[in-house]
Order: sequence, then C-alpha cells, then structure tokens
Amino acid sequence: MKTPQEYIESLRQLHLVVYMFGKRIENVVDDPIIRPSLNAVALTYGMALSPKTEDLVTARSHLTGKKISRFTHVHQSVEDLVKKSKMGRLMGSLTGCCFQRCVGVDALNALSITTYDIDAKYGTEYNKRFLKYLAYVQENDLVCDGAMTDPKGDRSLPPHRQEDPDMYLRVVEERDDGIVVRGAKVHQTGAVNSHEVIVMPTLSMREEDRDYAVSFAVPSDTRGITYIMGRQSCDTRKLEKGQLDRGNIRFGGHEALMVFDDVFVPWERVFMYREHDFTGALVELFASYHRQSYACKVGVGDVLIGAVQTVAEYNGVDTASHVKDKIIEMNQLNETLYCGCIACAAEGARRPSGTYYVDPLLANVHKQNVTRFPYEIARLAQDIAGGLMVTLPSEEDLKSPAVGKWLEKCFRARSGVSTEHRMRILRLIENLTLGTAAVGYLTESMHGAGSPQAQRIMISRLVDMREKQEHAKRLCGIAGESDMEPSLPFSSTRIPGIEKT
Amino acid sequence: MKTPQEYIESLRQLHLVVYMFGKRIENVVDDPIIRPSLNAVALTYGMALSPKTEDLVTARSHLTGKKISRFTHVHQSVEDLVKKSKMGRLMGSLTGCCFQRCVGVDALNALSITTYDIDAKYGTEYNKRFLKYLAYVQENDLVCDGAMTDPKGDRSLPPHRQEDPDMYLRVVEERDDGIVVRGAKVHQTGAVNSHEVIVMPTLSMREEDRDYAVSFAVPSDTRGITYIMGRQSCDTRKLEKGQLDRGNIRFGGHEALMVFDDVFVPWERVFMYREHDFTGALVELFASYHRQSYACKVGVGDVLIGAVQTVAEYNGVDTASHVKDKIIEMNQLNETLYCGCIACAAEGARRPSGTYYVDPLLANVHKQNVTRFPYEIARLAQDIAGGLMVTLPSEEDLKSPAVGKWLEKCFRARSGVSTEHRMRILRLIENLTLGTAAVGYLTESMHGAGSPQAQRIMISRLVDMREKQEHAKRLCGIAGESDMEPSLPFSSTRIPGIEKT
Amino acid sequence: MKTPQEYIESLRQLHLVVYMFGKRIENVVDDPIIRPSLNAVALTYGMALSPKTEDLVTARSHLTGKKISRFTHVHQSVEDLVKKSKMGRLMGSLTGCCFQRCVGVDALNALSITTYDIDAKYGTEYNKRFLKYLAYVQENDLVCDGAMTDPKGDRSLPPHRQEDPDMYLRVVEERDDGIVVRGAKVHQTGAVNSHEVIVMPTLSMREEDRDYAVSFAVPSDTRGITYIMGRQSCDTRKLEKGQLDRGNIRFGGHEALMVFDDVFVPWERVFMYREHDFTGALVELFASYHRQSYACKVGVGDVLIGAVQTVAEYNGVDTASHVKDKIIEMNQLNETLYCGCIACAAEGARRPSGTYYVDPLLANVHKQNVTRFPYEIARLAQDIAGGLMVTLPSEEDLKSPAVGKWLEKCFRARSGVSTEHRMRILRLIENLTLGTAAVGYLTESMHGAGSPQAQRIMISRLVDMREKQEHAKRLCGIAGESDMEPSLPFSSTRIPGIEKT
Amino acid sequence: MKTPQEYIESLRQLHLVVYMFGKRIENVVDDPIIRPSLNAVALTYGMALSPKTEDLVTARSHLTGKKISRFTHVHQSVEDLVKKSKMGRLMGSLTGCCFQRCVGVDALNALSITTYDIDAKYGTEYNKRFLKYLAYVQENDLVCDGAMTDPKGDRSLPPHRQEDPDMYLRVVEERDDGIVVRGAKVHQTGAVNSHEVIVMPTLSMREEDRDYAVSFAVPSDTRGITYIMGRQSCDTRKLEKGQLDRGNIRFGGHEALMVFDDVFVPWERVFMYREHDFTGALVELFASYHRQSYACKVGVGDVLIGAVQTVAEYNGVDTASHVKDKIIEMNQLNETLYCGCIACAAEGARRPSGTYYVDPLLANVHKQNVTRFPYEIARLAQDIAGGLMVTLPSEEDLKSPAVGKWLEKCFRARSGVSTEHRMRILRLIENLTLGTAAVGYLTESMHGAGSPQAQRIMISRLVDMREKQEHAKRLCGIAGESDMEPSLPFSSTRIPGIEKT
Repeated sequence: MKTPQEYIESLRQLHLVVYMFGKRIENVVDDPIIRPSLNAVALTYGMALSPKTEDLVTARSHLTGKKISRFTHVHQSVEDLVKKSKMGRLMGSLTGCCFQRCVGVDALNALSITTYDIDAKYGTEYNKRFLKYLAYVQENDLVCDGAMTDPKGDRSLPPHRQEDPDMYLRVVEERDDGIVVRGAKVHQTGAVNSHEVIVMPTLSMREEDRDYAVSFAVPSDTRGITYIMGRQSCDTRKLEKGQLDRGNIRFGGHEALMVFDDVFVPWERVFMYREHDFTGALVELFASYHRQSYACKVGVGDVLIGAVQTVAEYNGVDTASHVKDKIIEMNQLNETLYCGCIACAAEGARRPSGTYYVDPLLANVHKQNVTRFPYEIARLAQDIAGGLMVTLPSEEDLKSPAVGKWLEKCFRARSGVSTEHRMRILRLIENLTLGTAAVGYLTESMHGAGSPQAQRIMISRLVDMREKQEHAKRLCGIAGESDMEPSLPFSSTRIPGIEKT
Repeated sequence: MKTPQEYIESLRQLHLVVYMFGKRIENVVDDPIIRPSLNAVALTYGMALSPKTEDLVTARSHLTGKKISRFTHVHQSVEDLVKKSKMGRLMGSLTGCCFQRCVGVDALNALSITTYDIDAKYGTEYNKRFLKYLAYVQENDLVCDGAMTDPKGDRSLPPHRQEDPDMYLRVVEERDDGIVVRGAKVHQTGAVNSHEVIVMPTLSMREEDRDYAVSFAVPSDTRGITYIMGRQSCDTRKLEKGQLDRGNIRFGGHEALMVFDDVFVPWERVFMYREHDFTGALVELFASYHRQSYACKVGVGDVLIGAVQTVAEYNGVDTASHVKDKIIEMNQLNETLYCGCIACAAEGARRPSGTYYVDPLLANVHKQNVTRFPYEIARLAQDIAGGLMVTLPSEEDLKSPAVGKWLEKCFRARSGVSTEHRMRILRLIENLTLGTAAVGYLTESMHGAGSPQAQRIMISRLVDMREKQEHAKRLCGIAGESDMEPSLPFSSTRIPGIEKT
Repeated sequence: MKTPQEYIESLRQLHLVVYMFGKRIENVVDDPIIRPSLNAVALTYGMALSPKTEDLVTARSHLTGKKISRFTHVHQSVEDLVKKSKMGRLMGSLTGCCFQRCVGVDALNALSITTYDIDAKYGTEYNKRFLKYLAYVQENDLVCDGAMTDPKGDRSLPPHRQEDPDMYLRVVEERDDGIVVRGAKVHQTGAVNSHEVIVMPTLSMREEDRDYAVSFAVPSDTRGITYIMGRQSCDTRKLEKGQLDRGNIRFGGHEALMVFDDVFVPWERVFMYREHDFTGALVELFASYHRQSYACKVGVGDVLIGAVQTVAEYNGVDTASHVKDKIIEMNQLNETLYCGCIACAAEGARRPSGTYYVDPLLANVHKQNVTRFPYEIARLAQDIAGGLMVTLPSEEDLKSPAVGKWLEKCFRARSGVSTEHRMRILRLIENLTLGTAAVGYLTESMHGAGSPQAQRIMISRLVDMREKQEHAKRLCGIAGESDMEPSLPFSSTRIPGIEKT
Repeated sequence: MKTPQEYIESLRQLHLVVYMFGKRIENVVDDPIIRPSLNAVALTYGMALSPKTEDLVTARSHLTGKKISRFTHVHQSVEDLVKKSKMGRLMGSLTGCCFQRCVGVDALNALSITTYDIDAKYGTEYNKRFLKYLAYVQENDLVCDGAMTDPKGDRSLPPHRQEDPDMYLRVVEERDDGIVVRGAKVHQTGAVNSHEVIVMPTLSMREEDRDYAVSFAVPSDTRGITYIMGRQSCDTRKLEKGQLDRGNIRFGGHEALMVFDDVFVPWERVFMYREHDFTGALVELFASYHRQSYACKVGVGDVLIGAVQTVAEYNGVDTASHVKDKIIEMNQLNETLYCGCIACAAEGARRPSGTYYVDPLLANVHKQNVTRFPYEIARLAQDIAGGLMVTLPSEEDLKSPAVGKWLEKCFRARSGVSTEHRMRILRLIENLTLGTAAVGYLTESMHGAGSPQAQRIMISRLVDMREKQEHAKRLCGIAGESDMEPSLPFSSTRIPGIEKT
C-alpha cells in the first residue's frame, strides 16, 4: 500500500490534460484550488496505515490474500459491507467533504458481478480480464474514478437516436488490439486525483444502442482524455492569501467534465462490449453500491453538528433548551441516515460471483433520505450559528491595523474563546452550508448516485406490493384472491378462535 | 411449545379479575372485545409451529438447548437481535395490530443483564433466581406482561415524596417467605392475555426511594391483582353483529390498568429489592430493547400500504402519477423505519452476562422516527383512500333490502370488484388510521416504550458530541484544544501536503 | 331570522326519508347520533341573535336591505369575505366540529355569479330565478345543503360514457313544468339538517354530457330523495348512557349519501340546464369559496390547542420547555392556516354580477395547507396528551362502585383538578384526533372541497409562471425573449449604473 | 422624488468610511462588490417613477400631501399596509435579492408610534421632532438604514453588566446641544447605500440600562462612524471579468458592521433618551413591521421558481409529472408565505398616533414560516436544476478556444436553447441557493428581523390560550371554571336541545 506521500508523488508522474478558468493547469498536484481535494484522497492512504483505523480502512484481498486498501477491495462478506459504511462515515468526519474514492470501489464491485454474469450467459472472459485488472489496482493501491454519467442530450431519446451521436460515450472503432471510444462523462468526482478511469454505461440499453454498451478501464492520463474543472461556490477563496475564510482549511472536493476524444482501449481492459442486455444490471449494481456510499454524509453531518455545538458554546447559548433541542434533531436526522447505510449493508447478500451486494431496496431508501436530511441539518445549523455567519468581515479585516480592533471588540465570543476561533468555526459552517463543502454536503447529496426520482423508481420496483396487499385483504376478509393463500405461514383455520371468513 | 389451541385453553384456566364498562367479565377468553387481541397472541404460537416462519419465531434456549419461542428467548448473538426485528415486522404485517408479546421478551432480556450486574456488585443471587424463572417460562411457553409504567402522580416529585405513596408500586411488607407489594401499572398492553406479569420500576431512583426499587414476577391471576380494561376508539364495533365495519375482522390489541392491592411475591420470584442504584440501568435496558420492538409498526405499515394500493386499484386510480408517488413515499417512510430496527440490532453487542444488547443510540433514534412516520403514512393513506372512508354507511345498510341497492349502485368500484370488497378495504384503512388499530399504530407509536422526549434525552446523552467538535475544530484550524490529538487516527503532520495549522 | 328553537321545530315539520344501520329513522331530530350535528347548526342561529357575535354572523341583504344570517348572504364587499372567514373560525371554536352550514352559502354565492354569466351569454333568465330563490332563502332563514359530489363510477370516463348512466346526476325527463332528475350525491355534510338542497354538477363537462349539466334547488324532503347516513369513528358512543366518553358532549357533524330517484324540479328552481360550457366555471367558483370555508378548521384547531394546554396543566407539565415549544408549533400551524383564509378573502374582488369572489389561487393554497397542518397539530396533541388518551377505562368504570376508586386513585391529575375533568379533556382530544370529530378535523380537511390533488392542479393553472420566468431570465442576462420587455416596469436602460446586458 | 441617477449621485457626495478586505474603499459607489447592492436600491427609485408601478411604490404624505416614496411613508390605512407587502414582493421579484430599503421605513413607522406614546406619558416632544425629521426624509427622498442589532457580548447579561460597556450602543456624554454615543450595530443591511442611519435599542431594558435606552438619527457619513463590509458566499465572483458566473448579473445585497466611535447627535435628532420603559415597545413595533417586510422573500421565491421552470424547460423535463409536482410545491410554499404577509397587513389596525400597525401575531407567524419555507424551496430548486448546477465549468472555459467547444457540445440544452443560456440560468439558481443571494434568501430569512426563537416567544405571548381553553372545557363539560361564562356569546341554556352539563 502507498503512503500519502507516495500517492501524491505518483500523481505528479501523470500527464493529465486539465483546464480551469479557460487555461491549462501545468501543475495539477499543487494547484491551490485542486490541492485540498487531493489532500482528502491522500488521507485515505494515511488512514490505511494508522493502527487506529486500519481495521476499517484495509481489507484482505480475496485474490492475493494480501492486506489492501478497502477502497480496492471486492466485498467478501456482510462484515465487509458494514465496514465500508463505517469507513465512509469516518472519512467524512475527518475530511468534512467528499473524499472521492468510493466511486472507484463501487465500480470495481459492480463489475466483479456483471463480468461474471455476462460470462455465465455468453461464455466470454470478461471476469478473468477484470480480476487481472483488479489485482493490478490492488497491488499498486490505485485511485479509480468510476465514470458513469453521460451528457445525455435530449433525455427523451435513446443513445442511438440522439442528434449528436456522442451524447453517450460509444465505440467508434473496433481494432484487433482494442477499441476506440468517443464521448464524455460529466460530474466526475475526484477525476484529476485518480490513476485510473473505469467507464460504465449510464443507463439500460437496447439492441440498437449496442455500440454504447461498453465498459472498460484506462489510465487517467491516456491520450485523448481532457479534464475541465467544474466551479464550486466560493472556490476562489482558496486563492486568497489567508486560510481562515476557507472554513475547511485542509480538505475539499472537486468535479470535472471528462472528454474522451477518440481514446484507445486495449482488449484486456474491456469489461463489456455490446452486451446491451447487461447494461441495466451494471447500472443498478453500481447505483446501489454507490447509494450505500452516501454513508460519508453522516460523517460530514458529524462535523457540522460538532461545529454547531462549538459555536453554541462560543456564543454562550448551548444550554438554551431550544438550542439543545435543535442539536438533538440534527443528531436524530444524522443517525437515521446512519441506520440506512448500516441496514442496507447488514442485509447484504452473496451473489453467484462471490461478491457481497447490499440490499438494493434499503440502499435506495437510504440515499433518498440523503437527498433530504442534510438540507434540514444545514438549515438547523444556520439557525443556531446566527446571522453573523454571513455578515462576518474577512480575515484581512481581522488582521487589519485599521479595523481589526473593531472586529475583536464587536465579535468577541464567550470569555476564554478568541474572536478568531469564533470566526473560524462560523466560516466552517458557512463552508458546509453555502460554500465549497455545501456542494458536496447538499447538492451532491441530492444528485450523486442518481437524483431523487431515480431512487423512487427503484423503490417502487423493489417493494413487494403484492404481499402487502395480501396481508391487507386477509385482515379485512376479502376472500377469493387466488394467490393469497400461498403466502400464509399457516392455515388460518388451524388456529382455534380465529374465525375463517 | 404450545399450540394456539393449548395457549387459549391455558388462559381459560386463569382466574383473572377483569373489569370493563364497570362490570366484571366472567369469560375473558370469549369476550368479543378482548378476543381479537387474544387471537393476535395466539398467532405468535401458530407462527412458531409453521415451517415457513419457525426460523424467525423460534430459537434455541441457551439454558436447555431446546427449541423455544423467540418470545421467551434471551438473545445470544447479533443474529438473534436481527431476527427479533424481522419477527416483529412479520407479526405486525400478519395481525395489523399490536400482538402484545414483545414486552415480555424485552423484560426478560433486560433482567438477564441487570440481575447479573447486581450480583456482580453485591454478591446477591438474583441472576440464579432469574434463570430458573426463565427456564420455567421457556419450558411452559408462557406469555409475560412486562409491567413498567406507574401512575406517577405529581411528575415533579420522586416516589417517596408523593402525597399518595402508592403512585409508584412499592414494597409494603417484608416477610420471611417474600414481600408484599402495592401500587398499579398503567397502559398494560395485552395484560389479560398473559400468564405472567414481570414488574419493573419505571424510573431511576435514589436511596430515599429504595422501597420502590423492586422487580419481580407473579402469575397474572395472583390474588390482589385487578385489571380494568381501557377503551379504544371504535371498540364497540366488535359488539355489533356484522364483521365488515370492524375493518380488521380477526385481530386487535388491548391495554389495561393493573392494580396491585397488596400482592404477595415469594423470594424466588424477586429479581431486585432495594438496589435503587440499578433502577436506572434496568429502565434503560428495557427501554432500548422495547424501542427496537417497534419493528412491529413496519409490519402494520405494510398492511396499511397494501390496503391503500388495493383501494387505489379498486378506485381505478392506481396509475395516476400522484397516487404512485404517495405510495412510494409511504414505502420510503416505512422502510426507513425498517432500517432503524435492523441497524440497532446489527450494531448490537454482548454484555458481560452473555446477553446481546441492541445499540441503544440507534434504538432510540429508531423509536423517535416511529413517533413521526406512521402519522405521515396514515395521512397519505387517508389522502389516497378518499373521503368515502369516513362517510360510508354501515354494513347493515349494505345488507338492507331497503337501501342496500343504493349502496351497491353508488359505491361500485372498478369493474370486477364487489362493492363489499371496496367497503371492507376502506374499513380496514379507517381501522388503522382512526379506529382500534390507530390506537396501536399511531398513539402507541407515540408513547409506547417512552414518549418522544424520553428518546431525545437519551439521544443527547448517547451521542459523542466531544468527538464531533474535535473533528470540526481540527478542520477549521482551531488549535490548542487539549484533548483533540488523541482522537486523531494519525498525526496530520505525517501527510505531506496537508498543512499543519 | 329564526331562533334555534324555531329552526329545530322547522326541521320537525320535514318528512325526510333517512336510513341508518339499515333502518329508517322515524324521528330524525331527536336521534341521538344525529342530534349533536343538529345542535351545531342550531348554534349558527343562536349566534346570529347574540349581540356579541351578530356583527360577524349576520349581514344586510343586498336584495331586501334586511338583516339576515350571513349563511344566506351573497358577499357584497371584501369585508364580507373577511367576515365569512372569521365567522368560520368562531363557529369552529364554539362547536369543535363541522357546523355544516358553509356549503350552502358557498353554493348560493357561486350560483349568483354563474347564473349572471350564463344569462349574459345566452340571454336566459337564470339569475332572476336565482335571486327570487335567494330572497326566499334569506326571508325564511333556511339551511341549504350544497350538493356537488357524484358517485363518479369509473373515473377515467366522462359522465355520458359510464356503464351506469346514473353515476352522475342527470335530467331524465323534460316536462312543461320542470325537469325530472336521477342520480346521487355522496358525502353530503349536514344533509338531514337542511331545509333545502342545491344541486350543482361536479366537474367540467362537454357537449356530450349536456344532460348532466344541471343545477337546481329542491326542498330537502322532496319526494324521491332518500338519505343514508354515513358512519363515523366512535359514532355509537352517542348511544351509550353516559356522556363523558363522547368527548365533545354537545356537538358533532354528519355526512349522508343522498339518492335522487326521479325527483321533479319545477322550472323556477332550475339554475342551469344543459349549458355545459358553464359547468367548469360553476365548479371552480364553488370550490374556491368552499376552500376558503376551511377557515372553520382554524377554530377546531383552537379547541384542540386549548384542550392540549389544559391537559398539560392538569398533568403538571405545562412549563416543560418541550411542551411549551410543541404548543407554540401547534399555534404556528393553526395561525398559518388563519393567514390563508384571511388572505384569500382580503384579496377578493368584485365580479360583474356584483358578488365578491375570493382570490382563487390563495383559496386553493389555503385549502392545500388544510390537508396537512391539522394532521401535524393532531400528532402534537397526541404527543402532549400522553398515552392515557387511548388506555383510559370507560365512564362506567369511573362510576363503578367496584373499580371507580382505582381510577380515582391512579388517574389523579394535579392537585385541585378532579380525575373526571382530566378524563373529560382527554376524551375531547381523543374525539378530535381519533373519534367523530377527527372525521371532520382530519379526513374532511383532506377531502372536503376537493382532495389535495385538485388544489394542486388549480395552483398550477393559476400561478403566472411566465412572469416568474421573465424575472429570472432578466436577472441572469438571457436576452432576446420576445415577450420579456412588456412586463418590465421600466426600461432598465433608464437606470444609470444598472448595466444592460 | 429622486431619479435613480440622482440617488446615485447623492451617494457620491457622502464621505463614508468603509473598509473591506482590510482596506479602505475610496470609491464606494463604483466598487464592483458593492455596486450591485446599490443598483437594487436605485431600482426602488426607478419603480417610483414608472407609471406601471407607482401606485405600489409611492404614497401620499400625511404631513405634506405630496407624492412620496412609499419607503418613506408612515402607513395611514390598512391599504397602505397591504401595498407595502405587495411592493416587497414586487421588488424581490425584480431584484432577486435584498433591496435593503424596508428596514428604514419600518424604523420610521415604529418611531412614529413610540415617540407619540412617550410624549403621551411624559409630556416630551419626541413626536414633534420625529415628524420634522420625517418630513425632511420624505422631502429629500432619502434611504434610511434602521440600525438595531448590537454586538450583545455575553447574552446572559443585561447591557449595564457587560464586561465591555460598549457591547450595546450607549450615551457616553450629554451636552447642551446633544449627546455623544458609542457602540456598534452589526448585520447592517444596505448600510453604505444609505443617506441616514436611524438607531434604535435592540432589546427591552430596565432602569439600570437607561443610558442604553436611546434612539436617534444621523447622516450616514457622520464623523465617528466606520463601516466594515461583511463577506458573502461567492462575493469575489463580482471581481471576475465575466458576468455569467455571478448568476444575478445586476443586483445583490450587502451587510456591514457599523462602528460608532463617539458620534455626536444633536437634540433635534434624538427620539428617545433614557425612557427605558419604552424600549420593549419600540423593539416589538419595529420587529413586527420588519417581519411583515419579509414579503420580499416571496418575490425572490418567484425568481427562483421562474428559474427552475426555465431550466426544466431547457433540460426538456418540464412535463415530467414529478417535476411539475415539485414546482407546484414550490409555489404552494411561496404563496403560503404570501398569505402571511397579506394577512398580517389586512388585519392591521390604527394606533393612537394615527399610524397603522400590522397584526403582530400574524406578522410573527409569517416570519416564522420565512425561516423554513425558502430552505425547502431552495432544496426543490436544486433537485430540479440537476447536479450540473455545481459542476459547471467557468464562463472562461465556455469562451476558451481550447475547451469551449466541449462545453458547447456536452452541455447543450434542448433544441433552440443556447448552452450559454442554460449556464446562465443554472448560475442564477446557484446564486440563489448557494451564492451571494442565498445569504439573503436563506440565512437572512432565518435571522433577519429576529431569529426563529424570537418569533416563537412572541407567538406564545400573543395567542389567547385562555380563550382556547374555555372553548375546550365547555365542549367536554368541565363546569365551574369561574371565568368561562363571560366568553360565551350566548347562554347555552337558551338553545333548545343543547343540553347544559
């Protein structure tokens, strides 16, 4: 396994083509806007080496038996699934942002199942290829970007009927040694901090879309790939000379548009090719795993709750009953989210490939709550933080000989707490509810791993409505439903006193 | 294990003193208002014998190695805890009401821990007594009422300072062969369907209240115990000659006031006597187990969702997008509750006594959600059911030669569905949202196992706010907090590029 | 204007055909289940005579200049509309239930507009007929039932395509002296307490449905009309000998199915006949007025809040911060509803007929909130009331020589409050949240005056989305939208310093 | 009245001492961060001159009979109050931000009442002074900042017991010609766009705090006043060379810390001096008026709803049922807020001074909803907008020869809509939910005019709980409450058939 330093050095070796504000970034690793996101990934390496956290953050490879980062592990048990959720919460609480590495492990796990299932149906060798690739990733402790979302163009049309055929990533050429692909992937979290990019189709496809039914992995600096960085609220505060106004002074996240301009992929890195009938399954598997991954928001919630408790103490209002009650409510919502990511893991099950898969219904239910509760937690945080969170002058004002004294005088916290500390904690709350981290804690909670409606559709598919209806009909005496009896655990006539209708 | 029939016969042998509507009930078992609640308990016996459900509803006794009802089992593993949650949901979905038997198993488990812990401190023999009693309960497959809630009188005063000293159940006499107790327990669910009553104190007590620090078990028909049945909304519909207007035609629940008018308890059935310093622990253990037990409401929610889906189909509106969306929302809320009862079980842990205990924080979080979501599910159910649910004429009108034809004509459902079936499913929804079952699904969800504020207090105690604050302070650069470093999983200086403030 | 006594006597003179529990009711006025609903209507007469309330409950007829009941008044000003909302709240707070008389005034007002508008288009004389009828109603101070909702049958089909042509009320014969109608109206609130029935179509119709496009008024005991009473939760408690368990000991509501089995209507009482193009307008007018009428639920909310404050005091918990906060929340929700019914009235406007009409958008918004907030208020009420609300034994137990003493002992309230009073207030809360009044406060709030989705459709029609989009586009610099400029209140170029994009 | 240009020129004449980022701003009017906020104020001048809007935005002075800006008007009727609410909504919808001028009119109205009331009690001449000042403000059409919130220091202590006596603004010297004050006011909205500053005390004070019981007005550039600008999320985007990424390209808001370092106030501008017994009333009057002023957020909500409808159309999802339903919900919430600001105005009443005052209960209820609904509206906006809102590259990327083509290709909207327009509307939504406007739409909605708890305290004081309890007690038959009968509008015995308990 790599040390954080080795990870960072390994990124320096990449030749990524990255644009931001209309210009190419020469030194990606040290770019002040990108660096905090890289720090967060680096922390996943540090945690794997720490005796305190290695139990959660590492695993034993089922391929080699070696200790590996859990972020490269294919889950071999329910315990693995549960540890993944706990690792997510822990990482979220230590970084206060999106640490970007779960998307890769989710892609690996989904492919471990789908490649196996395609082979079972078609006698192909995708799984073998995949496991070889997996061993390479584990051995080198690599960060993988899992790239799924296409631009999509006109959403009412399938891929092959789009006006611009590149609206979904596709194979434009088949060669003896591999394929050439074209298209783009949007919203790529942590893209430029990755060694590898694992591409998957973004929706269930039909025969006519078979050129779009492709999954593969390429090194992140493969020729033909261009990254264009997305903006975040308050992104340029990282360019300012102070650090206080950033809120979170160490960590951040990023998203990028990733363009594939005729990129070559050798056959040994192709994991699906034209098997359109498996696109739906792959998307669903990845989505369920990735919805579980929103365990991380519980950790970010921990940070926000901790910040709010701190500011309440600094303001001297922490014992007010309404403040205490709101903090309890924040915890109630946050721990309800925790229940979701634990339950979908605890109810996970083995798939024929040997990989353990989360309970997809509960994973969707969990993610759906993630699209709601962080917003309410953030609202309560702003309630307790007070209006000063958005009217606070800058760090430079605090340090200014001319007006710093007024800030010191007017924004004094409770005795024993420095004005600067009060400003720092308020800036952290601003960061989490309006700034760069709000992008991850709020909007990404809404849309990451699929927008709310996507989960609702899955929930309606996954619940067993027929069984529920049978329970209801039996209890109110509606007889004659042909398929009702088989679900009965006993013949109701066998219980004396329970009259048969 | 008993069959349902044996269970019912065993109840006939009891000599309970039960009052309802100001009169003593001679035949409790066949009383039309009580019988549905007894049917629900009988079903727990039936389920234990059914090959389809025995895995959930039975367990292996750790005392005798014999197969026993899970409702008499002391949890020996996390799997036991998870199965308890699943059994609760299943029973709720099969009865559509409170099946009354979880309170006993929760009392048994709490006492298995507390008696062990008291002995460890004081060298007493409570645990030995308790285990003997437990073997008796398991061997005879008995229903135990777990009796905790006292009348409480003036809530601002402790037991010993109440004007009426009987406001909390207490020891009024100590004899060579046992003790004599006096007082009452309110809100006793399933009381008159029980063989045994297990009494526990209702709150944490101090030295001055030691006469109130008592726990014991007595047969339910012990001399001196009187039961006075509580009324439920729509209770007397069970006295009407038809069955349709009841909604749930087979099952129900009941609560009773239980008076202890100088009841004798032999020493071998006394499990706590004046160890006031363990009252808080016993209450908390029982409360956490019992908060988990609100898994049952997920099952009742299944019934309500099934009923709503059915009425939507009968009304021909099941494909309307707003109807589908509301049903998804009902499922979303119901499955979120399921996540709670699974998570608190999956995160359970072994106590020194060997008993497995749920995660108390998550159990409290789960119950808190139970005080909210069923109300919203019920509201959505009423939305979809339509106003007819509360304006429907009676079963006797339907059968009336004079006006039955008008009901048949005006209340016709979709083609192929009888008017009677439409009325039945509407009456079931009425039962669950306004009638006898609403008492259990709504008000008991609010107050059972402790009112909402009780959970909030526990949540505020159980969350680790200090750790959350350390995360927050570290991220915004507030240094010098003495106890911050120990919680760091690594020295942040060891990660290159992550600047130390 | 009638006194309450005269009103009641006038009802005795009617020969209504009313069925309940499969049997015809001989004496409707004194029937114990119906009487409380009649008491509530009688109170509207009493209030009109009381110097304290006459300003709200009476008005000056624009036809005769005489003082009349506001329940027979056609609104002549914004002030009239506002007073109607306030009268609704007052009546709700005095009866704690549906007082049934608003539906009539809403029908009268809607017809005052539609008859005028039909005449304007077709040169008919409906308005003249209507005003004559209105003068009769005002002169005799009559209660009118406004009958709109048809059985509807298969909701996906229009009236003329229903398998059973009577699923919507229709004209089956046209005679020289009038018309003969057949069909039914469901959910008729206060039907058997009414002197008159005003029938309106239930939805917007097309040419093919012209036989269904009919509106008229008939005396409530016209030959051919049959009433079948709907059941309510806990309805038969009114048959019990005590009164305490009823909760609300004086008032209630009722709904009935009203069958029109070939009923003759003379021409002078026909207000619309085959003008299908005005059905939509009539429905919308009536619906908006009637959505305003849900002002009454604010008054019922007042009762529930008052009951909860009282039980909190009786229990000695009224000063607990969480109790106080929940009561504030109940008030917050209740007063938000009040804002809705005041705002839609205050924003009302004159129609060509001279009648004042509420703002339909705000009336719909108001009613939509009524489908939500009472449920949350009820939930909070149950929270504060405590579990005893649903486990309380009966009034007969309280009075029983055998067990009354135990109730007195165990259910004692705070010093100075009798156990009976505590039981009474708890039964009132049960009545409002689960019992007969819950039918009105909850389910009727959901479905009365149209189910929630009906309001949402109206809201989407009534908001001006185009204008909102223009605001947005202008602010972010999207130019070239052809219709944007006209909405600008000024040319943005005229403001120095506000740069033009 | 001034034209926008005259307003801007008049600001150039001021000699304000303003600091931002630690440096003094030489040219406040043209500062790129401040200018958008000034544009918004300028628009209030433009609107007053526009024939389309002058009816709302101007009024007739009760002092001079001249046409004046409504922002300098003392309300003379309920109609004035209602127009103020409508003007607020209109201005919010035209600026999409806080337009900063309501605080001044609220201060003027509150002082018009309090100065009158002080005079009535003490025979002082504050009202005369005030009216003279008011005439000056009206005549010169000035922008007034209403300065209330002090730094407060330790919130558990009153002003005179603070460690630093300047934590509340106070009189430090009394002279023949006036007073000298010292202290600060925080969160001053629109401070540097104002001609005048009207200072009021921030809480109810006692005798010991009489030096803090002071109210007065001074020109904004009075010697001794220093302004320190607060930061807003994304503030520095206004410094970037493009305009697209700002979202709202024209308007914004600002807040500043205002320091009073021994500022002299002549007697004719002092409106309260040591009358501590009127501080509570003044605060409450101002607060209620200012809570009404949150009508503006309805207008900002209009912009956000319009933006969301537009992006839904651009994305081609505007006809999806879940999208339509969410937009209806946004409107439902927004119009509910509108009901609040209309209702508190429509229920306003005349005070002895002649000024009309909003209904304080409903104004508080309105503001309380404002602390909640905009957050949910913003959440729904982010739901519909899609994740692209936070992953969109910069305007410079769009214009870049290197990567602009990829943005054009990948972020194309529906046919007929330019990529740039799609980006613009997304940036506007970002601006309103995370950026500079979110400060006003969210956090200011939470804390402006008092934090949520302040409203809850007022609500609990203003509702008549006693009357509600009497309603409840009467209905359930609790007799003997001494003060119950007087509230009865009639003797219940007078209604036949309504039995007396």
